[in-house]
Amino acid sequence: MKYRVEKDTMGPVEVPADKYWGAQTQRSINNFKIGGERNRMPLEITHAFAILKKSAALTNAELGVLPQEKADTIAKVCDEILEGKLDDQFPLVIWQTGSGTQSNMNANEVIAYRGHVLEGGSLEDEKKSIHPNDDVNKSQSSNDTFPTAMHIAAYKMVMETTIPGVEKLRDTLKSKSDQFMDVVKIGRTHFMDATPLTLGQEFSGYVAQLNHGLRALKNTLEHLSELALGGTAVGTGLNTPKGYAELVAKKIAEFSGQPFVTAPNKFESLAAHDAIVETHGALKQLAVSLMKIANDIRMLSSGPRSGIGEILIPENEPGSSIMPGKVNPTQAEAMTMVCAQVIGNDTAVSVGGSNGHFELNVFKPMMIHNLLASARLLGDACVSFHDNCVIGIEPNRPFIKKHLENSLMLVTALNTHIGYENAAAIAKKAHKEGTSLREAAIDLGLLTSEQFDEWVKPENMIGGLK
Amino acid sequence: MKYRVEKDTMGPVEVPADKYWGAQTQRSINNFKIGGERNRMPLEITHAFAILKKSAALTNAELGVLPQEKADTIAKVCDEILEGKLDDQFPLVIWQTGSGTQSNMNANEVIAYRGHVLEGGSLEDEKKSIHPNDDVNKSQSSNDTFPTAMHIAAYKMVMETTIPGVEKLRDTLKSKSDQFMDVVKIGRTHFMDATPLTLGQEFSGYVAQLNHGLRALKNTLEHLSELALGGTAVGTGLNTPKGYAELVAKKIAEFSGQPFVTAPNKFESLAAHDAIVETHGALKQLAVSLMKIANDIRMLSSGPRSGIGEILIPENEPGSSIMPGKVNPTQAEAMTMVCAQVIGNDTAVSVGGSNGHFELNVFKPMMIHNLLASARLLGDACVSFHDNCVIGIEPNRPFIKKHLENSLMLVTALNTHIGYENAAAIAKKAHKEGTSLREAAIDLGLLTSEQFDEWVKPENMIGGLK
Amino acid sequence: MKYRVEKDTMGPVEVPADKYWGAQTQRSINNFKIGGERNRMPLEITHAFAILKKSAALTNAELGVLPQEKADTIAKVCDEILEGKLDDQFPLVIWQTGSGTQSNMNANEVIAYRGHVLEGGSLEDEKKSIHPNDDVNKSQSSNDTFPTAMHIAAYKMVMETTIPGVEKLRDTLKSKSDQFMDVVKIGRTHFMDATPLTLGQEFSGYVAQLNHGLRALKNTLEHLSELALGGTAVGTGLNTPKGYAELVAKKIAEFSGQPFVTAPNKFESLAAHDAIVETHGALKQLAVSLMKIANDIRMLSSGPRSGIGEILIPENEPGSSIMPGKVNPTQAEAMTMVCAQVIGNDTAVSVGGSNGHFELNVFKPMMIHNLLASARLLGDACVSFHDNCVIGIEPNRPFIKKHLENSLMLVTALNTHIGYENAAAIAKKAHKEGTSLREAAIDLGLLTSEQFDEWVKPENMIGGLK
Amino acid sequence: MKYRVEKDTMGPVEVPADKYWGAQTQRSINNFKIGGERNRMPLEITHAFAILKKSAALTNAELGVLPQEKADTIAKVCDEILEGKLDDQFPLVIWQTGSGTQSNMNANEVIAYRGHVLEGGSLEDEKKSIHPNDDVNKSQSSNDTFPTAMHIAAYKMVMETTIPGVEKLRDTLKSKSDQFMDVVKIGRTHFMDATPLTLGQEFSGYVAQLNHGLRALKNTLEHLSELALGGTAVGTGLNTPKGYAELVAKKIAEFSGQPFVTAPNKFESLAAHDAIVETHGALKQLAVSLMKIANDIRMLSSGPRSGIGEILIPENEPGSSIMPGKVNPTQAEAMTMVCAQVIGNDTAVSVGGSNGHFELNVFKPMMIHNLLASARLLGDACVSFHDNCVIGIEPNRPFIKKHLENSLMLVTALNTHIGYENAAAIAKKAHKEGTSLREAAIDLGLLTSEQFDEWVKPENMIGGLK
Repeated sequence: MKYRVEKDTMGPVEVPADKYWGAQTQRSINNFKIGGERNRMPLEITHAFAILKKSAALTNAELGVLPQEKADTIAKVCDEILEGKLDDQFPLVIWQTGSGTQSNMNANEVIAYRGHVLEGGSLEDEKKSIHPNDDVNKSQSSNDTFPTAMHIAAYKMVMETTIPGVEKLRDTLKSKSDQFMDVVKIGRTHFMDATPLTLGQEFSGYVAQLNHGLRALKNTLEHLSELALGGTAVGTGLNTPKGYAELVAKKIAEFSGQPFVTAPNKFESLAAHDAIVETHGALKQLAVSLMKIANDIRMLSSGPRSGIGEILIPENEPGSSIMPGKVNPTQAEAMTMVCAQVIGNDTAVSVGGSNGHFELNVFKPMMIHNLLASARLLGDACVSFHDNCVIGIEPNRPFIKKHLENSLMLVTALNTHIGYENAAAIAKKAHKEGTSLREAAIDLGLLTSEQFDEWVKPENMIGGLK
Repeated sequence: MKYRVEKDTMGPVEVPADKYWGAQTQRSINNFKIGGERNRMPLEITHAFAILKKSAALTNAELGVLPQEKADTIAKVCDEILEGKLDDQFPLVIWQTGSGTQSNMNANEVIAYRGHVLEGGSLEDEKKSIHPNDDVNKSQSSNDTFPTAMHIAAYKMVMETTIPGVEKLRDTLKSKSDQFMDVVKIGRTHFMDATPLTLGQEFSGYVAQLNHGLRALKNTLEHLSELALGGTAVGTGLNTPKGYAELVAKKIAEFSGQPFVTAPNKFESLAAHDAIVETHGALKQLAVSLMKIANDIRMLSSGPRSGIGEILIPENEPGSSIMPGKVNPTQAEAMTMVCAQVIGNDTAVSVGGSNGHFELNVFKPMMIHNLLASARLLGDACVSFHDNCVIGIEPNRPFIKKHLENSLMLVTALNTHIGYENAAAIAKKAHKEGTSLREAAIDLGLLTSEQFDEWVKPENMIGGLK
Repeated sequence: MKYRVEKDTMGPVEVPADKYWGAQTQRSINNFKIGGERNRMPLEITHAFAILKKSAALTNAELGVLPQEKADTIAKVCDEILEGKLDDQFPLVIWQTGSGTQSNMNANEVIAYRGHVLEGGSLEDEKKSIHPNDDVNKSQSSNDTFPTAMHIAAYKMVMETTIPGVEKLRDTLKSKSDQFMDVVKIGRTHFMDATPLTLGQEFSGYVAQLNHGLRALKNTLEHLSELALGGTAVGTGLNTPKGYAELVAKKIAEFSGQPFVTAPNKFESLAAHDAIVETHGALKQLAVSLMKIANDIRMLSSGPRSGIGEILIPENEPGSSIMPGKVNPTQAEAMTMVCAQVIGNDTAVSVGGSNGHFELNVFKPMMIHNLLASARLLGDACVSFHDNCVIGIEPNRPFIKKHLENSLMLVTALNTHIGYENAAAIAKKAHKEGTSLREAAIDLGLLTSEQFDEWVKPENMIGGLK
Repeated sequence: MKYRVEKDTMGPVEVPADKYWGAQTQRSINNFKIGGERNRMPLEITHAFAILKKSAALTNAELGVLPQEKADTIAKVCDEILEGKLDDQFPLVIWQTGSGTQSNMNANEVIAYRGHVLEGGSLEDEKKSIHPNDDVNKSQSSNDTFPTAMHIAAYKMVMETTIPGVEKLRDTLKSKSDQFMDVVKIGRTHFMDATPLTLGQEFSGYVAQLNHGLRALKNTLEHLSELALGGTAVGTGLNTPKGYAELVAKKIAEFSGQPFVTAPNKFESLAAHDAIVETHGALKQLAVSLMKIANDIRMLSSGPRSGIGEILIPENEPGSSIMPGKVNPTQAEAMTMVCAQVIGNDTAVSVGGSNGHFELNVFKPMMIHNLLASARLLGDACVSFHDNCVIGIEPNRPFIKKHLENSLMLVTALNTHIGYENAAAIAKKAHKEGTSLREAAIDLGLLTSEQFDEWVKPENMIGGLK
């Protein structure tokens, strides 16, 4: 490989000749060989930096601290980044400095040097027309840019992937619930036979879970909409022009299409990432809900002959490399694995969030890595679960009927007529003798056959079908 | 010990003669010897059951399914429970059936049998005037009562202990922040010397953290205000009179003084406890924040001679059994231990919340145990931390002055005048040679002594004192 | 209440007149009102301190730094503590100083003052004949005593409660496995019908899990057997006589009956509690295993009519307050709740363990609280699960037979005869048409009825019955 | 893109014409669009499958159930995989079926079809000379191959990356400890000044932590060395020839160079992944230790002027984009971020491990993904921390001297001469008046200047330098 020499305040560094990055990016490559390719800083952060750097440059120009021409060049490079043209210029891994300084410098360097080239310069020029720190990073510090990029990337991922994915799943669960609202089936509590409900009612619980989860997630967006930018090094806003924080937030809101505002307290924005903890907490709640829902669907569809078998799910793949004809609830499995991961990621985020010191939390890349991963996995998994499983769920009426008719818990309908203890005697007798409730009831002389028929009607035991 | 015999649908059981509980409570004592005394079902759940059972009885009477006289007796016993007179009648542990059925039956039995005694009966009577199931539990199931008691107890604990505790701490941190707003000090990022801010600004970050945490916690209360009662066995409301769910929620709201409503979807309320997951998630967020705050205060007060030493905290106890005269930041330690516990409890709650099946989640007692523990620990710890530490925090001005004057990072003020690289050269020279920034700057010929004095003023580096 | 005045190096404090504790215990009571009664320092720690203080006193006497008479008095009080006579003299909560200094002083004070009384003195005497620090705490620091007490208490709990509990359960699972070794049943993978195995084979997996878990737990005991005592304040052993560390460990081993040794590196023993992390990690592994086992048993016993229903478990309590005759797998529920708690406690222990600084980890009381809780809960839950559930498990042969005969996965036996794809065609046809495998196979002309009978024998599909 | 049509038991699927994979791999691509590129099944699993499939083929040939020629072809393709030539043929993501069946089939298909091509066939041929199921997967099931691949990959990663990385760091910490063994410095407990120790002693604690962690990790390898292979679908070994399990384990041991054995109980190996839980638990313990060590090093090196500053670490990169000349403990930050991630991953592994049902745990890909990630991150981070930080640590003697001389806790040396209370009076007086201990001691008339000099010698307070 060919190299050129770049310098920073620590001296010269060899950089691949054809790359736009500079000395500090290269130092990070050299010093942090942790985790390899899969552990690259998420591209979403890179793109968030492009929005940020463009907004900052234009704000700086507007406030008179950066020549308009430089700002325009910076903006142009940022647009290239947003178009994905420079993705290979961001080689750093997550496991670098905890402030993300090196990724901020990666952005600064690539924007400055690519800008220099756009303006007709060469990467070999010792002096570039745009300076990574004095121009691209003007009125900024890693300490306020990286958390700003975190919020931009997180907000976008939640709005564009997580929420739409969960809503898609929720909507179809809702229409399935409506569609199955009259399918009376046995209920199960403690994994044991219980009084009946309808399949639609059962599914309505899933809808309610996801609705609550969506509301909880949306509740966190206010905190996430607060941007650290303007706080610079420690939150005081040192080296920023008057009006900068508000204006740059406005531009970021405009370019990202999300309702960002400047954080009322910048000290919190740098020293803590409770907004990330808060949003991830809501993602974790969704994971808890989705684990329950996916488990139910997996268990309800179990069989095909010796399980619960009350619903049918699409048969997508051969399920076994050895058992011919086997089909498995693989989408539920992918979903529950994702949920387990998100629950684990939440612990990582909590540990990172709790370990900030003084003016800076230095678990930033780790925290945003987990949040982006969880937000995307949940969104993607909801869509996959939806498209390849939930959309095709149908009741398996013969199994539903068989289970319902067998159930001893229909006896509960008798409580208000003959009391709990008499009803229990009937159920116990039927259970012990393997007979029907009706037989046991009549044998015990507690009611007549006609009364039984009148009082024990599953379709009357399911309430108002809410 | 003397015993009497009580019966349930499974047969006779020996019960201590002087206790109000019956057969099912006793079976649970016999069958669940797990964890001992410290693992009793929280008393808050018992008291929540008293509110619930009273509300249900009066609702049942009002809707004509229970004689008013029985309802009044039930209400009378519930009031005794709320006065703490019957605390020793609730011996069960957390680690019982996962639906809390046995604690529901414990309440049913104690209320029925104590009611029977209040009405002139004797515990020895084989037939009691009030029936645990048919009267006290009327229109109810463990599956809707226990989650209702969970929400009542949790809501109350959060409102009466957690929020007031956090607010008390927040308020004093705010007044300390105001009071210290002009105390300029060195900032620290990466645990390293950074540009200055004021001690008040530093504390304002803590205030912002707690404000965000309080808002996040309050956001969860809407979900927590939803009551499962009226869903009975599987959420359908089997065996409840018309209008019951709404009316009983209204009464619970009235008797508890909290804005409870009937849950719009009872299937979710029984099968999932995402409301507990949600509220505990917010408690965990507060724990993350408080860990950061307490760590900062512990580190800022470190010394007395060889640490950071920028604040003084009250000296409350001899700190060492071997090192005479030692004083330690013990309140910060208690707080951070509580925070670690709450972060752990959150994992337990997530695991429990994700493992519900079909119509019932059977991790109820474990989940509410953790939520009540976390909510109380956080509230208590905030008050303790406040009363015995934060209220007495004072700046240690000599240390603050010394650290500020030493700082090389004041050089940052020069960026806008001489550029980042020249400024870096000054800092590096001063660092290497152990001199002051001024000396290094002048030596390098980058600015005059007058310029240095004009440009490098810590008090000008702290922004608008937000 | 009547009070007397006690003094420490900070001045006078009012102490209840009838209590043996002194000023520092009282300061802790006053300063740490967190969590209430349920949050008392575990009694196991108090008793471990008694073993420790007795061992230290006798060692000090033997090494000539404490008069034998004082040592004997100290030992006498320690024996009273071990007999449980002074349990009410240890009122402090877990959430105190993170070094446990206050509980160490509580022990020092109670032992000194009770010793003074045993020697004929009065609690009102200003000067006691035994000094909490200079005598009882001689050659010690909280920093080495508290971790020593942690290891003593933890080791004892693991050896006396956890391991016997798990082994009891393991042994009975083993005998059930042996007993059920010829009960051929359907296997289930992905919660779906699979090839057969025997019920005994299924249970043998549980036995293997617990054996692995026990070995993992025992592997941690070596680290846990290392005692910090002798390190004093920071690990250097300041103020200890020559030979002290080894001798005191020997005495502790003798008095506790466990193989304790002095830690080879005392700096680690004070500054980190990786031994606690390690042992708790093994407890967590057991929790993971037991969650699986308990879930299986709950699901295998599900029904009674509309579930899996392949095993019968003891019917211990009425399972529902509303559904008469219902019986639930309550022991499995208690077990899985315990497992969830232990998994959560593990997170708390990790957070605490990772947050030590320099010469001391100050999450000690929290860490040992979780370890003792988890170790006891697991042990107790295993015994409860064993006594009230596993011991009574029986195969439900009619269900087993029905499920086995229905299974389409018996087709797997044909792979080696007709190939995977042909076998799949048979299974798919039978599934689609609701017929038996035999019918489908013959219909497809892939084999004869005789071949089917010869090749498809469940009892030949279960391997060597390992 | 050009496509060809491949078939499986569910029918035809379009596959990219130039890829070796078949219908089932393609179905998984189509059905599981979750997480994108970064979420590919780890390559280590692919390579483990190569070892496995080669071993199985040769074993099958040796036992007479597969023609030697086919076995040789299969082995040849496996060697190509191990050489990295076919990495792009394994496109599946982690979030697929929880048994990893699709990745097993991906291996089966690529090996079969590449083998067919090696033997002169074409991908377009409808019938290939080697069958993915009947030949490559012979005597196997996903249910035993995937867990076998998990153990092979995990064992290798732990042996080749984690342990060497930790040992490298441990060795250098040991030599630093030796080198610094006479550098007397202040100790710190509760983050407060305490009695002295040497820098070498402080570092010896880190060495002891890592030694304990390494032993704990190695303790888990026995469980991890057990291979599921030979259990096939449910653990019974259906469709395997006699002697297969033992022989194939022997071959895997040979080809991998690790001491693998066949698992004594295959039911456990399929239904639970406690071995993964166990090994990850040890990784988590290492993370806890490394978090403590990295925090200490970050804090000990804090400053450069207003922190603790007792050690100097290499200056690797400019630390700030705004603060010129700033250098940060970035390697410690990367390490602590990795540790937080590993602690979180441990929760994910526990959740997955606890959720197996009946004969199969279906969180396999998630569990191994976390284990491989944690094992690699820890190993890589140790090397990075070592190479770029620890190797260059030097004591900062001026700071060490200043802190030591200032310390009030040297007073502890007086305990044995004048008692704890008198010593406390001296320390308190010096603290209050800002004087030296000597001055305060003499002022109080408690000892002479000569006595002070004789008794208070930091170099005598550091014990036997263990």
